[in-house]
Amino acid sequence: MDKLEILKCIAIVIIFAKLFGLGARKLKAPQVVGEIVAGLLLGPSLLGWVQPSNFLSGMAEIGVILLMFSAGLETNLGQLKKTGVKATLIACAGVFVPLIAGTILYLCFYGFDKIGSDQFFHALFIGTILTATSVSITVQALKELGKLTDEVGTTILSAAIIDDVIGILVLTMVISFRDPSNKITDVLLRTAGFFILAIGVGAILYKLMKWLDTRYPHTQRIPIIGLALALALSFIAEKYFGIADITGAYVAGIILSSLDDSKYIDRKMDVNSYMIFGPIFFVSIGLQTDMKALDMTILLFSIGFVLVGLLSKVIGCGLMSRACGYKGLDSLKIGVGMMTRGEVALIVSKKGLEVGMLDSKYFTSVILLIIISSILTPIMLKLLYSKNSKDAGGNGSKESADSANA
Amino acid sequence: MDKLEILKCIAIVIIFAKLFGLGARKLKAPQVVGEIVAGLLLGPSLLGWVQPSNFLSGMAEIGVILLMFSAGLETNLGQLKKTGVKATLIACAGVFVPLIAGTILYLCFYGFDKIGSDQFFHALFIGTILTATSVSITVQALKELGKLTDEVGTTILSAAIIDDVIGILVLTMVISFRDPSNKITDVLLRTAGFFILAIGVGAILYKLMKWLDTRYPHTQRIPIIGLALALALSFIAEKYFGIADITGAYVAGIILSSLDDSKYIDRKMDVNSYMIFGPIFFVSIGLQTDMKALDMTILLFSIGFVLVGLLSKVIGCGLMSRACGYKGLDSLKIGVGMMTRGEVALIVSKKGLEVGMLDSKYFTSVILLIIISSILTPIMLKLLYSKNSKDAGGNGSKESADSANA
Repeated sequence: MDKLEILKCIAIVIIFAKLFGLGARKLKAPQVVGEIVAGLLLGPSLLGWVQPSNFLSGMAEIGVILLMFSAGLETNLGQLKKTGVKATLIACAGVFVPLIAGTILYLCFYGFDKIGSDQFFHALFIGTILTATSVSITVQALKELGKLTDEVGTTILSAAIIDDVIGILVLTMVISFRDPSNKITDVLLRTAGFFILAIGVGAILYKLMKWLDTRYPHTQRIPIIGLALALALSFIAEKYFGIADITGAYVAGIILSSLDDSKYIDRKMDVNSYMIFGPIFFVSIGLQTDMKALDMTILLFSIGFVLVGLLSKVIGCGLMSRACGYKGLDSLKIGVGMMTRGEVALIVSKKGLEVGMLDSKYFTSVILLIIISSILTPIMLKLLYSKNSKDAGGNGSKESADSANA
Repeated sequence: MDKLEILKCIAIVIIFAKLFGLGARKLKAPQVVGEIVAGLLLGPSLLGWVQPSNFLSGMAEIGVILLMFSAGLETNLGQLKKTGVKATLIACAGVFVPLIAGTILYLCFYGFDKIGSDQFFHALFIGTILTATSVSITVQALKELGKLTDEVGTTILSAAIIDDVIGILVLTMVISFRDPSNKITDVLLRTAGFFILAIGVGAILYKLMKWLDTRYPHTQRIPIIGLALALALSFIAEKYFGIADITGAYVAGIILSSLDDSKYIDRKMDVNSYMIFGPIFFVSIGLQTDMKALDMTILLFSIGFVLVGLLSKVIGCGLMSRACGYKGLDSLKIGVGMMTRGEVALIVSKKGLEVGMLDSKYFTSVILLIIISSILTPIMLKLLYSKNSKDAGGNGSKESADSANA
């Protein structure tokens, strides 16, 4: 894409994202839904004004890093510790229920075969795609509702992070059945290694940043170093430990979340995020969808895939939350908050294509699941939270300051 | 460049830009100089940690658009009108003195030939490359000094904008001697067309934005629409009128400079600019230089080219400023402020290569001129301004708030 195309695309993307975001808000839906719809409209499926490109996907990647870094910065560490055990249990349910449900769905569609057959592995891979929750849209929706840091919000976030790690372990296990070079013990060691490194190096970095922040509070260098740290940790997580980059960004945010200037850093990230990178990220989800690629069989399979994908997370995580002692409505919020899928599902799918365990025609199903879950989750969360506040006495329209001055 | 490379490069670029920027400030030089040096160090000439890439140059382009938009927003329209005639005269001197000096330099180096010969056209093209002032580094330096909006700053900015337009006219004329499809009258019409459109559409857009700004002051949509306008006008200027995109961004800024929220928009642009896009723009100037490509002949020619390039602007613009009634020191500041070259010189060079009027080996000379002028101009401006304030009674350390909390 040449320089002028880039300028044109970004102008179109940010203006349409804002207009559709405001439109969504008028219809009482979260702004992200509007942004994704703007992407669908602008993309190859409909108007074709903006084509997916390497440049835009690079910008979108920075967008999701900023979003996860910001979520990390806003994490209440006390809450996280309090919800840790419950979050782990919920994450486990959120991985294994969809894994099994997805496998069964494929086998029902294309016929059962014995364990170890190609058919079985293809089925298992469809299940694997369903495991990874993509929390970025939920984060944005909870942020708009001003509910990111309460107990339910923190539980969803922590469960999604743990879910990510377990999901990657499952993916590596499933692939390692086929490819002997990928050893399970290595993967476990690498994952443990990353978190040990994150805690160890994190403690040193935190000390350094705290010293810098005390010496130069509210200066440009503080958010710049913070951002560089988030980018570096994202890179290191994925490159050297095989953990998704967004997990690295989230961990970087958590490391800096106890700084005096954490809110200051967060505000600067937020400007970068809402002006350019955020809209590009959400619009590009819509952009990537080419509706024309759908045929009847895939359409039917996709419907099943989407339903199973959504329900298995809601039921799995919701029931586990209930078992962990959350109230009915809160359990439902957690289940719904966990049902979004995003770029991780696409990454897993691409991996499956590479190792010959997935046909590219299933990409459409995955993208549909991403879009539908991305649109449904924010709407349902908003409904659930407004129900909550109606029960509590009609305090439902109190949104965060962030959203109020959109 | 894959996604992870992007994250790594940006982390390295922003952290090195900040460190070297702060280092430059410690040595009493402007931060941009440190950022360009960081680019030289990181680039292929030395460490090779960051390679120039399409992604980075796209980000750099957005960076220069943000910078010029911001300069436009900060323009004092009253000042611009007051300095208009003088700025036009200074711009003319700043185009024709370097054009003639560059032509003579080439002919001295490679032997004179009759007007109309290939040799003569090559010489004329070397002169043409020297015409376009790139004001972005001067803007940043003046911003750091807090002098962007005084009479001298406004004169430099307006002269550079007019210089750009005249430079493009000269380029088109020089090329049209060779290529009959490129008619001079078309170019004149297109340029006139852009400014008529900018004034006409600008007035309507200003009215619309003013209405929006009164209704929704201090909301996210105001800077987002402003940025989209800047990007769109940049695109339209270059795509449909053959005017440099940065001129379009500057004009967009001028259009919005009288809004009540112009400072609010500017602040938001500034966060985007100093966090990510600005450092990438300045670092990428250093990155693009491959020092290894130099041989002895080109080195000697380059030294002459750089000297002629710098002196012809300082002398041409400086003398004309003096003739326009500026004091000696102010004339020198204007001359020095006009001597920076940047991406426009590269664009002109690329054009010359396309039409067969320039050999690619002269690229090194152009890049050297860009780097040296980019490093010298901010240092010299700082010296000239501090001399000024010493004369006025030692008020020299008063820098803008922008720079103080770096």
